[in-house]
Amino acid sequence: MRIVEGGVCAPKGFFVSSCAAGIKYENHPDMALIFSEKPCDFAGTFTSNVVKAAPVKFDMGLLEKEARVQAVVVNTGIANASCGEEGMKLCRETASAVSKSLSIPGDSVLVASTGVIGQLFDIEKIKYGIDMMKGTLKSSANDANAAARAILTTDTHEKEVSLSFEIDGTEVTIGAMAKGSGMIHPNMCTMLSFITTDVSMDRKLLQKALITCVGKSFNMISVDGDMSTNDSCFLLSNALSGNKKIMSEEEQGYKAFLSALSIVTKFLAMSMAEDGEGATKLMECRVINASTHDEAVTLSKSVIGSDLTKAAVFGNDANWGRIMCALGYSGVSFDPDHTDIYILKGEGPKKELSFDVEGKPYPYELFGFPLAREGVAAGFSEEKATEILSGKHVIIVCDMKDGNEGARAFGCDLTYDYVKINGDYRS
Amino acid sequence: MRIVEGGVCAPKGFFVSSCAAGIKYENHPDMALIFSEKPCDFAGTFTSNVVKAAPVKFDMGLLEKEARVQAVVVNTGIANASCGEEGMKLCRETASAVSKSLSIPGDSVLVASTGVIGQLFDIEKIKYGIDMMKGTLKSSANDANAAARAILTTDTHEKEVSLSFEIDGTEVTIGAMAKGSGMIHPNMCTMLSFITTDVSMDRKLLQKALITCVGKSFNMISVDGDMSTNDSCFLLSNALSGNKKIMSEEEQGYKAFLSALSIVTKFLAMSMAEDGEGATKLMECRVINASTHDEAVTLSKSVIGSDLTKAAVFGNDANWGRIMCALGYSGVSFDPDHTDIYILKGEGPKKELSFDVEGKPYPYELFGFPLAREGVAAGFSEEKATEILSGKHVIIVCDMKDGNEGARAFGCDLTYDYVKINGDYRS
Repeated sequence: MRIVEGGVCAPKGFFVSSCAAGIKYENHPDMALIFSEKPCDFAGTFTSNVVKAAPVKFDMGLLEKEARVQAVVVNTGIANASCGEEGMKLCRETASAVSKSLSIPGDSVLVASTGVIGQLFDIEKIKYGIDMMKGTLKSSANDANAAARAILTTDTHEKEVSLSFEIDGTEVTIGAMAKGSGMIHPNMCTMLSFITTDVSMDRKLLQKALITCVGKSFNMISVDGDMSTNDSCFLLSNALSGNKKIMSEEEQGYKAFLSALSIVTKFLAMSMAEDGEGATKLMECRVINASTHDEAVTLSKSVIGSDLTKAAVFGNDANWGRIMCALGYSGVSFDPDHTDIYILKGEGPKKELSFDVEGKPYPYELFGFPLAREGVAAGFSEEKATEILSGKHVIIVCDMKDGNEGARAFGCDLTYDYVKINGDYRS
Repeated sequence: MRIVEGGVCAPKGFFVSSCAAGIKYENHPDMALIFSEKPCDFAGTFTSNVVKAAPVKFDMGLLEKEARVQAVVVNTGIANASCGEEGMKLCRETASAVSKSLSIPGDSVLVASTGVIGQLFDIEKIKYGIDMMKGTLKSSANDANAAARAILTTDTHEKEVSLSFEIDGTEVTIGAMAKGSGMIHPNMCTMLSFITTDVSMDRKLLQKALITCVGKSFNMISVDGDMSTNDSCFLLSNALSGNKKIMSEEEQGYKAFLSALSIVTKFLAMSMAEDGEGATKLMECRVINASTHDEAVTLSKSVIGSDLTKAAVFGNDANWGRIMCALGYSGVSFDPDHTDIYILKGEGPKKELSFDVEGKPYPYELFGFPLAREGVAAGFSEEKATEILSGKHVIIVCDMKDGNEGARAFGCDLTYDYVKINGDYRS
């Protein structure tokens, strides 16, 4: 397995374009288009929010009827959520404009939006954007990067990655781009992720692989506890790599693909958490030795979601009492008098791309620097703790001593800038 | 029913004192002592956090054995939580010092602490404080007010109230003081509340009344979603009013007491939310016409707990999409296409003391100013919305149109100062 260039254009047969259509601001890239020269099988996971944006409903409809897709069109600025029947109409009109422009079937276009809830966008601007993009579709790393930038809202940098690996001697590639970075919270948390691949695989397996990976990546991050109406993760495969079609989970090819997809999704998820609104650092909670996996997930998410813990991490304050407190109100029953809390310095999302973490589900470099042992203060050096906490990636390890299960959750610190960004986002 | 002076000293036979014992800072009031000349029946509700502070465990023990209590001693600065067996020993030593000082039985002293988790306090300072206070116990409004100030941590002002009403011609009084204002979240949310009364009532009924009122007040507020290890609400009754002892819920006396206690607890809870760390305003969510009461509670708490909504309220931004979104991820199933969202100006905690809200469980002055109707934008004036949102008490009304149940939840906006206070609280 190796990192390659090209983002969503890295797999064979994918093209991309982006433009500034003036949806919310002038001269600000706000649309992107992904096109595959061959129809794709498509897997997707979507927000579990009861309030689903129109594009989410539209795409879920395509997923349900097992449509084969050839294009994804994205706009930022306006989310097209809470817009009633008008919003659904905008989705149909957007998809129809793309299908006409590219001469592809009407039901082969996915749509995605992000931005303000409750406002309608101007379909003429969208059509104008599509017109611009259809003539500039290219398959280069530069264009993929421009698209990765065009889909951003409050993110401070683009999030893209591409990996190649072999299946029975055939090179297979996965490419991806994603955006955060507010209204981010578990359960298909993450705004928009677009993953392309040239693997040849049964569509049910594709969906299964995506669900497995999303559960351990996007669904384990939280920036602010607010689960968006628009969260979507798309996986498109056009089968152009030429590998023998993977038909079963037992095949080595499936395992290799799952392993690569897991790295891609975890990298994107960690990048989103790291780039959470106003964040100065990535905050990770590793719960180890919990009695069940579900409990490990609940405990780790509770710590990541604690505003008090997030603010303490921002302030480089080794306030482990807040961590203990957050474990305590998670809903999981445990004996606090046996819990240990450690902190250690992480190496950021890039570490995930070093591949050495795969194969070992919880490769915890235990133990870090102890803050609490058996539920009480470990008598630590504040200086040393502050030094670890001032890093760009702070890992909190909670040893529950209740079993053998673990989980990793990702978030970020709570800062003045989060309040600034969200006290005045809409206007 | 009428407001009276005197706080926790307003009911007959209660005395109070406070002092600066130097527990965390010099010359800063940090201890209070409540004393009743007659042993009291005692009701209590405590944090449901798995990590319970030593004083909480200590007091729960007294409650369980139905001890009659005569004194409550409180310290701020150090929470005595996550301190293991040492912490329990400190509770016993504190209670024992009070019992010796006041010549009352050893098992008649409740203890309460608030402050930093994971540190032990110096018992000599506590003893020094108790020594100071035993000679200055008084029953005056001024001393009650000084005690209400001594128990504060990051609160900006004291929270106290006292009410008198009649039961069969006998005057009965309830007095109370409380503190917030961080690590505040539903389920016995609220740090420390001390309620005194001279009512004569069966102890089981006392507990029942307290649980009922706490469920609608303290358990409906959230400042930051962090449920503390120390939350405690105490209700002490010394029966000195002379009313005929209330033995059944069916009695008018019980109903009158419940009604008064409900006003007291709701006033304190709203005051805590209003004075949440860094808050500039009280934020209330009234969910109406939900299909069940539990769903109304879940929905209203979800809105109150949404960081994005809290930040929007801070910024006077009528971003109703975030409210809709928070309803959507609450876990309650509903049809967003039929939901209405309104805002209106509230009159703050004081309104609760006007008594006119009692008897009508959800006296919503429907409707406020519409932001969304049937799930889509109501086409409102941004200026008018901003004016309502700039008030000191913003009420968000969500009409679910699914049934007849409702709930009110209380919180506050998310501000720069919250981050400031909590980025550097411990040091």
